[in-house]
Amino acid sequence: MVSRYLAADWGSTNLRLWLVEDGIAVKNAASPFGITRMQNQSFPAVLQGLLQQMQIAQADVSRVYIAGMAGSNVGWQQANYLPCPVALNALGTSLTRVDPGWPAQAGIIPGVCVPGPDGADVMRGEETQLLGALQDTASALFILPGTHSKWARVHHDVIHSFTTVMTGELFDVLRHHSLLGRGLPAAAPHPESFDCGVMAGLAASDTMTELFSVRARYILGHLPAQQVDDYLSGLLIGSEMRDMRQRFEVSADTPVTLVGSGSLFTRYDRALHLAGIAFTTQDADTAILNGIRKIHDSLDT
Amino acid sequence: MVSRYLAADWGSTNLRLWLVEDGIAVKNAASPFGITRMQNQSFPAVLQGLLQQMQIAQADVSRVYIAGMAGSNVGWQQANYLPCPVALNALGTSLTRVDPGWPAQAGIIPGVCVPGPDGADVMRGEETQLLGALQDTASALFILPGTHSKWARVHHDVIHSFTTVMTGELFDVLRHHSLLGRGLPAAAPHPESFDCGVMAGLAASDTMTELFSVRARYILGHLPAQQVDDYLSGLLIGSEMRDMRQRFEVSADTPVTLVGSGSLFTRYDRALHLAGIAFTTQDADTAILNGIRKIHDSLDT
Repeated sequence: MVSRYLAADWGSTNLRLWLVEDGIAVKNAASPFGITRMQNQSFPAVLQGLLQQMQIAQADVSRVYIAGMAGSNVGWQQANYLPCPVALNALGTSLTRVDPGWPAQAGIIPGVCVPGPDGADVMRGEETQLLGALQDTASALFILPGTHSKWARVHHDVIHSFTTVMTGELFDVLRHHSLLGRGLPAAAPHPESFDCGVMAGLAASDTMTELFSVRARYILGHLPAQQVDDYLSGLLIGSEMRDMRQRFEVSADTPVTLVGSGSLFTRYDRALHLAGIAFTTQDADTAILNGIRKIHDSLDT
Repeated sequence: MVSRYLAADWGSTNLRLWLVEDGIAVKNAASPFGITRMQNQSFPAVLQGLLQQMQIAQADVSRVYIAGMAGSNVGWQQANYLPCPVALNALGTSLTRVDPGWPAQAGIIPGVCVPGPDGADVMRGEETQLLGALQDTASALFILPGTHSKWARVHHDVIHSFTTVMTGELFDVLRHHSLLGRGLPAAAPHPESFDCGVMAGLAASDTMTELFSVRARYILGHLPAQQVDDYLSGLLIGSEMRDMRQRFEVSADTPVTLVGSGSLFTRYDRALHLAGIAFTTQDADTAILNGIRKIHDSLDT
């Protein structure tokens, strides 16, 4: 008998779905109906609509695993946040059941939190990527770039601590809603300006107190208008590297893994090189699919 | 003969005007036509309209001094940025002439810059406040809260260096355009949350990497929704204090002066107390009026 299930990564801005048969993703699709963009549709309706688009019969799918913001307080149903330290292989035992509207067992994977108040933090979705990215039991630091990037210390399959840095969102709001972006022309990619920003971020004492220098450099003619975007992006990512490297005490022999894909992956890859941090890489989609496969296998046996 | 002139503080969001006779401000008014909100009116038209509203005859005013963003590259006419180190009593010798539309000598006061590219910075308006706030020749650090707050080291009436921190604007864009503010109810003033934020900012290693904790504290129930604003405001101002205290090597015997007014002044006053930084205060309007008076007197003699 074929082992078949749906794996969903249901985030804020989109929904991605894979049909997995015997451990292999045989079909996949993406929908723009992230939890903040559902236009009053119900969660089951969006899920069923995407299934139909993928030409998958509901009767063929008896299990659905959902990671991401669908489990938040503004999602399908609020799922737990398991407090750190949390064993990643415990994720499958804490699924929150939801009804997809056909006879299937659908479960939202719990998030993980650092209980506060000091150092309070939350993640949703990245815990599944971490579970999938684990390949050995050595002490390790994982970096997951994103709108809200995560740095997580994992030891023997246990998340001991993590920190969220809203680097991506900060870039977006500064670029589109602050004086730093006002009146700028469309950006022209400029790797040297990105590098220059990274180096400034690595050398800074604080991110916030460096931000205005971006405008000053532009006004005083040191930074062409088309290069402000890349410089600012570099400054923010470099600043993230500097503070997180210190916070997680990254040394030359710390095993660091960068989990990502696309242009954001490329930026973090470059910034880690400039910071002199050695690392290995994993593809983000592979990680989340592996994480869900591990959860499925743990329940199936 | 009466010495009479107009003093203008023409900023991004509003224009404030004083009529000064024999060193005393005898009339004042404010207009919403800051340089970013002029609705296609010309600068002379706005100035003349406000004069008319104040019932001041043009013929009675032969001198106009303008400080602030009216001298920026998107203002009335671009005025100089004098590079640090700059003697504050040199401001009056570098006015940029503009034509107000009646027979008067109108001049925009130059800004001040830190030439770059490293540490590049610019100010417009604050240099006039600094000139007015100077009362002795001791080495001193001035703090000028604002949308873009300034920390300036002044020694013997010379600005040696300064740093801009866009704390106020960062609060505004995070509150209104980022996930940190999404779905929050109207804020209820909560001094304890502000203090708690300040302490967190003073203890942080970096501002950016602390921002997400604001949302996490709220999600995990440690911070009521109505108190997020005051906590975030405190976090940002506390972070500013921490980094600037280090950057300007503030010690127990550094003479620090806080120049401000209103609610922002109150917040910085409280945060400085929490940071254990001793300081004296000056009213912001008094400072800018004194600065313009010094410029006028230097030209009049």
